[in-house]
Amino acid sequence: MSPSAFELHPQLAADTLLVGDLPLSRLLLMNDARFPWCILVPRHPGLRELHELDEADSTALFAEIRQLSQRLLALGDVDKLNVAALGNRVAQLHVHVVARRSTDAAWPDPVWGKGTPQPYDPAQAEALLTHLRTP
Amino acid sequence: MSPSAFELHPQLAADTLLVGDLPLSRLLLMNDARFPWCILVPRHPGLRELHELDEADSTALFAEIRQLSQRLLALGDVDKLNVAALGNRVAQLHVHVVARRSTDAAWPDPVWGKGTPQPYDPAQAEALLTHLRTP
Repeated sequence: MSPSAFELHPQLAADTLLVGDLPLSRLLLMNDARFPWCILVPRHPGLRELHELDEADSTALFAEIRQLSQRLLALGDVDKLNVAALGNRVAQLHVHVVARRSTDAAWPDPVWGKGTPQPYDPAQAEALLTHLRTP
Repeated sequence: MSPSAFELHPQLAADTLLVGDLPLSRLLLMNDARFPWCILVPRHPGLRELHELDEADSTALFAEIRQLSQRLLALGDVDKLNVAALGNRVAQLHVHVVARRSTDAAWPDPVWGKGTPQPYDPAQAEALLTHLRTP
């Protein structure tokens, strides 16, 4: 692999299930059944900040956020979406898109650092991954 | 005022100082001297979610995030930017752009709900507003 190839940060790999690759980003599902919580990782090496994306990639990312938002809303019973690029712990640019419910474990606070992740059971994970892979 | 005119949510108005209006968004400064923390509020009535912006407005918002990010980085000593549209408490669409330092009061956690805001003294606020208003 060339030194400039895209590699997913090992922490993101450890915390997530792979949904697949969109035109710009790798789409991941946080392995935490408490929240429908996805992560978009633009597949360019070395990115840290949102504003480092050029205009074409910004447009592509926004389109991917929009498409993912619709898929998450289609799960039903979603009160709010949270979209965020933080990266204080994992500097590789990644964008959280989280479907929030007023009944969820963290509401109305943000999800980061709240309690303990609850891994999906395999059937649950498979159903959600299939849903997220549907265009 | 027509019923469809843009009005800033009173909670956002109460928590912030006005920087000014960009082409799409009202730019606000959180009145909390612990973090250089700005908020962009696209000036369309009724917006709640990022994906409700059409493509032209998405492009405009991204350009404003990019420009604001550069202004915040120009403050110096910034380790990471946090960019987020949450809205669990205040549903009006607004995008946080926060300059984070590894020495700040919340690092490496997100800033929301951490401790108590420390209002700027007037000279500090004026200097920062002037910086943020510089193109």
